[in-house]
Amino acid sequence: MKTSAKESASEAIVVPSGDLRKVISDALAANGASRPHADIQAANLVEGELRGHASHGIRRLAVLIERMRRGLIVPDAEPDMEWVAPAVLRVDGNRAFGPVVAYTAIDEVVAKADDTGIAMAAISNSSHIGMLAPYVESIARRGQVAVLLTTSEALVHAWGGRGASVGTNPIGIGVPTAGEPLVLDMSTASVSMGKIIDYAATGRALQPGWAVDALGHPTTDAAAAVDGGAISPFGGPKGYALGIALEALVGTLTSTAFGTDVVGTLDTEFPATKGDLLITVSLEKLGLTGMMPALTDYLAQVRDSGVAGPADIPGDRARRTREERAAIGVPIDDEVWALALNYAEGLSHD
Amino acid sequence: MKTSAKESASEAIVVPSGDLRKVISDALAANGASRPHADIQAANLVEGELRGHASHGIRRLAVLIERMRRGLIVPDAEPDMEWVAPAVLRVDGNRAFGPVVAYTAIDEVVAKADDTGIAMAAISNSSHIGMLAPYVESIARRGQVAVLLTTSEALVHAWGGRGASVGTNPIGIGVPTAGEPLVLDMSTASVSMGKIIDYAATGRALQPGWAVDALGHPTTDAAAAVDGGAISPFGGPKGYALGIALEALVGTLTSTAFGTDVVGTLDTEFPATKGDLLITVSLEKLGLTGMMPALTDYLAQVRDSGVAGPADIPGDRARRTREERAAIGVPIDDEVWALALNYAEGLSHD
Repeated sequence: MKTSAKESASEAIVVPSGDLRKVISDALAANGASRPHADIQAANLVEGELRGHASHGIRRLAVLIERMRRGLIVPDAEPDMEWVAPAVLRVDGNRAFGPVVAYTAIDEVVAKADDTGIAMAAISNSSHIGMLAPYVESIARRGQVAVLLTTSEALVHAWGGRGASVGTNPIGIGVPTAGEPLVLDMSTASVSMGKIIDYAATGRALQPGWAVDALGHPTTDAAAAVDGGAISPFGGPKGYALGIALEALVGTLTSTAFGTDVVGTLDTEFPATKGDLLITVSLEKLGLTGMMPALTDYLAQVRDSGVAGPADIPGDRARRTREERAAIGVPIDDEVWALALNYAEGLSHD
Repeated sequence: MKTSAKESASEAIVVPSGDLRKVISDALAANGASRPHADIQAANLVEGELRGHASHGIRRLAVLIERMRRGLIVPDAEPDMEWVAPAVLRVDGNRAFGPVVAYTAIDEVVAKADDTGIAMAAISNSSHIGMLAPYVESIARRGQVAVLLTTSEALVHAWGGRGASVGTNPIGIGVPTAGEPLVLDMSTASVSMGKIIDYAATGRALQPGWAVDALGHPTTDAAAAVDGGAISPFGGPKGYALGIALEALVGTLTSTAFGTDVVGTLDTEFPATKGDLLITVSLEKLGLTGMMPALTDYLAQVRDSGVAGPADIPGDRARRTREERAAIGVPIDDEVWALALNYAEGLSHD
């Protein structure tokens, strides 16, 4: 379970996930969201917390609400959807909550793939969708293979370059098995900007390979990384190549922005210009449901290859964390929680 | 330009690529291939050489021919193709040459995507397809985004595991621009098994992070890596997660083997049990050709971010190597070349 410096500090409290969902939903409803939309967005943030990724959790609430207040998120908007080709859905999010748009598109695409075999949604003008895992997991549980991609603000440098020019461009993959789905959700950056900022705030040295300074030189100085530097891609030149290929692919197919023109998921100033791309394939339509037990057997062999206990399959660690936190509660920074409670009471925090 | 130990040794000679193509095609024809199929397979091997990846080049000729002689490759077979859903083509390669099957499927899928927007081919029972770059590049030049995946023999260990349980599972992505396409072609392994074997043969120490020994411990001893060890994924746990997710996705959708059940691209004993998966999306059908100049501009900005000369976009380095070698010839190990000439004369080499 990864925890940031703040989470592991003494001010962490533990809150039942049901309470978290209720308070976040109240906070969003107090700021103009209908209860159904507030519930969907709240559940998304709590999924981030449950799966151990606080960077996609409650701490994003303040930005979400400020964006709602400024009209950059329109909490009761519904997406416009058009089948621009027999197997391709174009989705204009109309500035609605990211998870509202994503789940609406998922229902359409999954139903279509049951007919066409493969189908795709290209989503623009939608807000941040949070972790990719819950989406691809939900699709895999419906018997379809899912690939979900999204672009982000430029935070990563080109290999051999200086300055941030590529998004953290995560990749989500869900594959059905006879048991729990395989669920991949990984950024193509070596580390999150949230972690770099935490390190800078607490004066800790970065690990080698995490970032470069403004000149493009590798640095362990978190302040130098934040001040005109950039995060390094994971895995060196290959991770960079994958990240920029995904940026090109997603930006092109969603007709959205590239590189430093991508804004609107971290700030409170701009409409979101990133894109989300979803592709699903129906196993039932293709007569492939018999592969699910075969995949389960293979994954069991891989787990058994572990030297010190089972080797993890993508999704295993987050599943363990989620089960634990669903049972005993979610560790939350007490200031983040106090802010959420204030929002829920309809109080401004300015 | 990456060169293996053998290539940079003194016995390398330089051969014009046209001569290479002719001799390899003759060698295949002398062993029962029709001239059109021999030309396609020969061009594929020469593309590996031209782009600087000798591991996918002429040195595979001996295995190819032995597999032809044993009936594991049927050089004049044509694939059986069936649209099992409106946008999904199932392809039984019938043991034909991998590039013959792949290009036949590409023509079908590209034409279909111009109608359905997105289309997929799931290929089984086909021989090794070589580098992914030439395929996705050719599709991008036809105005479509391409994703091409293939599984391989298990050569990579699970993260935290011992023994090879995951393929090197490369990923190919092609995206059209207003200029040269973006072309990603990368394995999810840290290094090729060919390189490990070269290092073992010449007694050189591996770089840290390349491999583990039979106990799953990191090693720089190439012999230990070969003897029951395994190649490490690129980029640590993330590269492993990506590699196994691709194995699950491709194996499932092509109804082929997983893990150690994948055989038949490196050996001369077994029919090929790996799968190839191709997805293409038509920019014209989706009204997205206007994104091509925007992508060109973005990629120019990224290149300009380079500290010591332009930063490379995926495909740039291979394109430079290809241009150079197309002009001045391809460096080839003289023994490999002599063997090819023997095959071309219809001589057995046993």
